[in-house]
Amino acid sequence: MCDQYCISFADVERAHVNIRDSIQLTPVLTSSILNQVSGRSLFFKCELFQKTGSFKIRGALNAVRRLIPDISEGKPKAVVTHSSGNHGQALTYAAKLEGIPAYIVVPRTAPNCKKLAIQAYGASIVYCEHSDESREKVTKRILEETEGIMVHPNQEPAVIAGQGTIALEVLNQVPFLDALVVPVGGGGMVAGIAITIKAMKPSVKVYAAEPRNADDCYQSKLKGQLTPNLHPPETIADGVRSSIGLNTWPIIRDLVDDVFTVTEDEIKRATQLVWERMKLLIEPTAGVGVAAVLSQNFQTVSPEVKNICVVLSGGNVDLTSLTWVKQAEKSISV
Amino acid sequence: MCDQYCISFADVERAHVNIRDSIQLTPVLTSSILNQVSGRSLFFKCELFQKTGSFKIRGALNAVRRLIPDISEGKPKAVVTHSSGNHGQALTYAAKLEGIPAYIVVPRTAPNCKKLAIQAYGASIVYCEHSDESREKVTKRILEETEGIMVHPNQEPAVIAGQGTIALEVLNQVPFLDALVVPVGGGGMVAGIAITIKAMKPSVKVYAAEPRNADDCYQSKLKGQLTPNLHPPETIADGVRSSIGLNTWPIIRDLVDDVFTVTEDEIKRATQLVWERMKLLIEPTAGVGVAAVLSQNFQTVSPEVKNICVVLSGGNVDLTSLTWVKQAEKSISV
Repeated sequence: MCDQYCISFADVERAHVNIRDSIQLTPVLTSSILNQVSGRSLFFKCELFQKTGSFKIRGALNAVRRLIPDISEGKPKAVVTHSSGNHGQALTYAAKLEGIPAYIVVPRTAPNCKKLAIQAYGASIVYCEHSDESREKVTKRILEETEGIMVHPNQEPAVIAGQGTIALEVLNQVPFLDALVVPVGGGGMVAGIAITIKAMKPSVKVYAAEPRNADDCYQSKLKGQLTPNLHPPETIADGVRSSIGLNTWPIIRDLVDDVFTVTEDEIKRATQLVWERMKLLIEPTAGVGVAAVLSQNFQTVSPEVKNICVVLSGGNVDLTSLTWVKQAEKSISV
Repeated sequence: MCDQYCISFADVERAHVNIRDSIQLTPVLTSSILNQVSGRSLFFKCELFQKTGSFKIRGALNAVRRLIPDISEGKPKAVVTHSSGNHGQALTYAAKLEGIPAYIVVPRTAPNCKKLAIQAYGASIVYCEHSDESREKVTKRILEETEGIMVHPNQEPAVIAGQGTIALEVLNQVPFLDALVVPVGGGGMVAGIAITIKAMKPSVKVYAAEPRNADDCYQSKLKGQLTPNLHPPETIADGVRSSIGLNTWPIIRDLVDDVFTVTEDEIKRATQLVWERMKLLIEPTAGVGVAAVLSQNFQTVSPEVKNICVVLSGGNVDLTSLTWVKQAEKSISV
């Protein structure tokens, strides 16, 4: 397996040793109401409680710490990325822990709250225009000017290995685990988790959960070839708008058991259900996995797949933009 | 102590045996950012994860189960209360567990979301007008018609003893505890906790936290006599609008070490801070305790009072009414 893919299980084990002193061993919570609604035993891995509010610190910190031997020799002098979301915050935090600067390339049009969050974490913002060309050009310039290194949010092998450490913890925390449900955008998390699960306990299913409006992973599996989203997808789950890539696709193709897609309404309802019933402030991206296990399609999964861990990937939600929240319906009784 | 007050520590111990099979042993969470902001080691007792979304199930279930010998003899035939908030939901849930009906007297003018929540829990709503007279009159009629019994939200001794079980758990969960901070409305929770703490570990301080707009507890302690709020107080912390009463006052007078009052702005800021940084969807009433430990006044508490448990009392927040949420300020860095 080591040669087939960009990472091996040994990379995940090394990542765990590499980062575990600085991350949270996040708790796993349960909810009787969610068990009732889903008809399964659900275990929620609370990565929303993770440092920086999402699982992304695992991969970012592993990547930064893998660079340390080089840094002590004077290179690179910075880390750079163009994610204005959770990876950007995580990379900044990781870089700060190791004492190197972080530069985040952000479109001028990005929401103000994201810019403030990046600044609060101590990164330098570099503006680009709202186009792929501008982003690439500005990133290249910054990499040269700062003598920095690019840490890709989901195709960097050290990042994928870092995300895999979630599965190491879950296997210890959830007895009799039958399956894991993982939101998929670029696929770093689901790839790292699949590598880990299929090495340690291959009978456990790994399911990806994806917005129907950004279903490149589903389409790729269906067609048997990497099929990126044609247009920038419109989904409230802003953490999974990117497509899977050259490094994550082979792992997903071979080791992810199935992909479940969900509508925007299903994502919103699942997110709000977790807020109201579990009192956990997840972001809609984390709601994608919850929506998947509650979906009609998921009913086709054998009842023997009973104990299911849903990764609540993050909790960085912009509270000022909750215009879609609806008054609780009385249909869900206790 | 047993004769002085409406309950003794033995009542709390009995309550614990009485209810522990049906309530959650709620976790205690920590937050490095909140530790930084407060300059203390804070431990958050997550009663927002409790059954029915607040600590109120402890007292309600203890009260209902204390009635069971009578119920088996055919009386009472129902439980009745006039709290449309967390106690109403908790009493309904407790009554349902024991198979007896619950009637909740609610003003016609109550928000629709509260009515829906009560119905979702399976209670019968009985409407009254928006006046104390109408409420008393309708409650009296319902008690007669249903052969029911009134379970007061905070002055009923079995309720106070039930709430005290929080302290039994915290003493086990938080090593080297120096103080507890507890929101106070009618005072059932802080009285039950004070009885327990001062019996088991009297060196631990018990602090009440109260909105400045509803400061009857503070005024009562200041004057040395029970001083209810003159007018129905206006505070976003809807769970602590009621005044302390004849049963809770003597306990608060003797066993609560201090009362800290906080402004509406402080409550909102603390609540939002817990949402954004801890990802816990607390209700503003729970934010009162957090606001207290973050307040200027609290700086007068000796630095030796280091390990402080803040009870996050509940998480039943109406998400459709979050008009007061402000965009995150960059002033709080990680």
